[in-house]
Amino acid sequence: MALDWLLAPPLPETMPRQRVLYHRLREAILSGRLAAGTRLPASRTLAAALQISRNTVLFAYEQLVAEGCLLADRQGTCVAQPAAPPVAASKSGDVHAVPLLLSTRAAAALQPEPAREAAVLPFAPGTPDYGAFPFRRWRACLERAWRDAGWRQLGYAAHGGDPVLRQALAGHLTTVRGLAVEAGQIVITSGTQAALDLCARLLGDHGDTAWVENPGYLAARVAFGLAGLRVHDVPVDHEGLAPGEGDWCEHPPRLIMITPSHQYPTGRVMSLPRRLALIERARQSCAWIIEDDYDSEFRRTGPAPPALFGLQPDAPVVYVGTFSKTLYPGLRLGYLVLPHAVAANFARATSLATRAGQGIEQRALADFIQRGYYTTHLRRMRARYAARQTALRAALKAAFGPAVALSGGEAGLHLVMWLPQEICDTAIVARAEVLGLGVRALSSYTRAPMTCNGLVLGYGSLDDRMLAEGVRRLVLAVRSPNFVDEIPPMKNGPSAAAAEPLG
Amino acid sequence: MALDWLLAPPLPETMPRQRVLYHRLREAILSGRLAAGTRLPASRTLAAALQISRNTVLFAYEQLVAEGCLLADRQGTCVAQPAAPPVAASKSGDVHAVPLLLSTRAAAALQPEPAREAAVLPFAPGTPDYGAFPFRRWRACLERAWRDAGWRQLGYAAHGGDPVLRQALAGHLTTVRGLAVEAGQIVITSGTQAALDLCARLLGDHGDTAWVENPGYLAARVAFGLAGLRVHDVPVDHEGLAPGEGDWCEHPPRLIMITPSHQYPTGRVMSLPRRLALIERARQSCAWIIEDDYDSEFRRTGPAPPALFGLQPDAPVVYVGTFSKTLYPGLRLGYLVLPHAVAANFARATSLATRAGQGIEQRALADFIQRGYYTTHLRRMRARYAARQTALRAALKAAFGPAVALSGGEAGLHLVMWLPQEICDTAIVARAEVLGLGVRALSSYTRAPMTCNGLVLGYGSLDDRMLAEGVRRLVLAVRSPNFVDEIPPMKNGPSAAAAEPLG
Repeated sequence: MALDWLLAPPLPETMPRQRVLYHRLREAILSGRLAAGTRLPASRTLAAALQISRNTVLFAYEQLVAEGCLLADRQGTCVAQPAAPPVAASKSGDVHAVPLLLSTRAAAALQPEPAREAAVLPFAPGTPDYGAFPFRRWRACLERAWRDAGWRQLGYAAHGGDPVLRQALAGHLTTVRGLAVEAGQIVITSGTQAALDLCARLLGDHGDTAWVENPGYLAARVAFGLAGLRVHDVPVDHEGLAPGEGDWCEHPPRLIMITPSHQYPTGRVMSLPRRLALIERARQSCAWIIEDDYDSEFRRTGPAPPALFGLQPDAPVVYVGTFSKTLYPGLRLGYLVLPHAVAANFARATSLATRAGQGIEQRALADFIQRGYYTTHLRRMRARYAARQTALRAALKAAFGPAVALSGGEAGLHLVMWLPQEICDTAIVARAEVLGLGVRALSSYTRAPMTCNGLVLGYGSLDDRMLAEGVRRLVLAVRSPNFVDEIPPMKNGPSAAAAEPLG
Repeated sequence: MALDWLLAPPLPETMPRQRVLYHRLREAILSGRLAAGTRLPASRTLAAALQISRNTVLFAYEQLVAEGCLLADRQGTCVAQPAAPPVAASKSGDVHAVPLLLSTRAAAALQPEPAREAAVLPFAPGTPDYGAFPFRRWRACLERAWRDAGWRQLGYAAHGGDPVLRQALAGHLTTVRGLAVEAGQIVITSGTQAALDLCARLLGDHGDTAWVENPGYLAARVAFGLAGLRVHDVPVDHEGLAPGEGDWCEHPPRLIMITPSHQYPTGRVMSLPRRLALIERARQSCAWIIEDDYDSEFRRTGPAPPALFGLQPDAPVVYVGTFSKTLYPGLRLGYLVLPHAVAANFARATSLATRAGQGIEQRALADFIQRGYYTTHLRRMRARYAARQTALRAALKAAFGPAVALSGGEAGLHLVMWLPQEICDTAIVARAEVLGLGVRALSSYTRAPMTCNGLVLGYGSLDDRMLAEGVRRLVLAVRSPNFVDEIPPMKNGPSAAAAEPLG
């Protein structure tokens, strides 16, 4: 296919070459010059033909894929059906107008999976039990914080966050998590996503490699990708992250993101030898380990394994924690714990990068911890979530037989139900969605060459009624391909009760 | 100087070349092999000698400058006094241990100026009058929000933020700011820094150029630098941003950050022809204009000039607003207004990038706006800040003579007092700091080849007593080089009153 006209003169003077290519390709698709279904040459081939860099071609292709003008499949790239609405089109519809575009990295972040609105659906992972939150106590702490508030609480936060909260949290982590931590090592963040984003930008540079677990937490990929890091998938086995020599040598990491105490989503625990080996290799490679101590608060079976942070002095480990699951996600408070050597500079750089605030909420949280309310709440929720998990296991075994393969039960708010390869998890999830369930496909957290097939079942917000009804519908989704005739789709769903005011 | 040993074998296999160079240079400095005062070769020279890229050398030099091991001056780079504490040293002091390091971009962000802790000092720019905030009304709105809260307010925010707040804000912007805006075009952010960071990552890619005003808002440079953009300074004249053909052709922008309604810090207003021309050229260059409508709420002299956003349909303009100055900074709520074409995708990408929350505060703010409290508060503060500015002008003219050159009086919370070239603004600011004043040097916002010399004087939090005392001390700082003997340094300073509880 002759495509010389894509960069034929006259070229607009002030427009970068990659945008010219994008623009002309797009016009040709929208005008029909390139018909739907037309296969485009591979990026290398087109780059060679036009004597431009392959990145220039990739930029144009990726943007147009993000807009729905092109389709990427295993065979390569082809022109999409004209029905596909261009996501970034000018409202006037004038294809000659210069289109308004998001960046390539934003388009890439939007690519793999549609961003979901938060919702309380049965089996949606990561949803805490909102109704069980001790509102009266929390609001009393907020009241006190407002009553005592001066300009320090109303202005921007001090470097690293409110000193009283950092102190209270250091005490909590020392007693409850066994981390010997000082207040000066803690940086308050607005949650885990903010923490990962700060690690990506303050510890990593553009082009550095960030290792993520495979399968793993999807939002980490977004944080690292938006910060310009190369994301490299490292497989997870029964002992946790299992990098091979090829990973270390061909993709030397700057950041290694792990969830060792309860791997997300499989729920596996990283073994101690694996932890020590990882620290040793990370040191040699000048890499930082980012330890997301996900769900460690909700252990059923004894204390959580010791964190990597603190296993060895001066280890290159940053510890990430959050109050999103233990209190409520909208609070937007979490924290990082850093080695002494970088803590002060990391705190200063965080102030520059984010201009943090929320002084009232930070002071209220310090109060909540200091009065022992937080420990009490965690203990109560641990028992409640353990009971829910037991009930869910029993219901799943009753529904799918005692041999059903479940994992991830030692902690947290979800279970994984593994499926045999002949059953496609994404098809089940698609059917379950129609039935009002928030279950996720294990394969959606997984990248090739790893294969994982199963269902990620959150139970944090499942009361008895929702559990029974949820499992009944799950059976329909798993067992029956033409299930829609049998049960009417839910409109408000079993989540209607949870939408009631809680205050 | 022979420096071949810097990269002599054996090289650690898994360590990138740039870190080896950094590491060996650092060890040589700490061990005394490279003595204090030793001049290092220019980066080009060393790169050529070692047959490595200049970036590799620059990386090592910049890190070591950031750590205080090297000094950069006009003559080049030399080894610092050993007294300088390495900021990223291992706590154990073992120089053979691999040091824990922040990223190059974080070190660069920390470089130009130390991050300041927030404080209420006389003349500190950007500080609102905390005491005048209508606490009772605001807390009543928070109470109502808590009372009505369901899981939607406690969970992660919907894409773009709380729909009720977006609607209320669209109404407010339409009536008060004359922007014909729909709720779907608004994305709630956690303040201006978060908004700039989102624009940098979601509209810009690594290596893209971001124009900033010169002199201009320092925190914008940080946001763009941390996102991997190249920051290019464009001069500001009496009509606002004044790019030349060289700027357009040699540094074609992807982002153009401006403060057109009240340029920060000079206070100048961008002319309408300049606005139209900027939109036109931005269109041709596929650039986005980021319009920070800084301080437009506090205009003294009639309505604010029309925003660039809305001047032309489908213009590539993003409008940035915040509640940090109009309510209080610690609230951490602000917003972006986007063209229809990208609004929905920008909102989805924002959810992925930040996982926003603060549902209670967002709902309370919607309530505060809908009840008319916000407009009332703005009107009241406008009158109060205008009176303060009049008083400050009068006091400065009384103290420094009627010919003192003041600018920036049409809006906002600060004035600029221009100084003749023979008086060094940074020296005055250093003396003023000892006297407990928060005044800033105009030159600290300025990059070569522009020269601006003056004082940026915030008056948002200045009551009558602080104003009189503040100007008295400012006179001492400006007039008297050996002032310290004359007046004892303030311990608590005139800000002690403001530290009292406000609730």
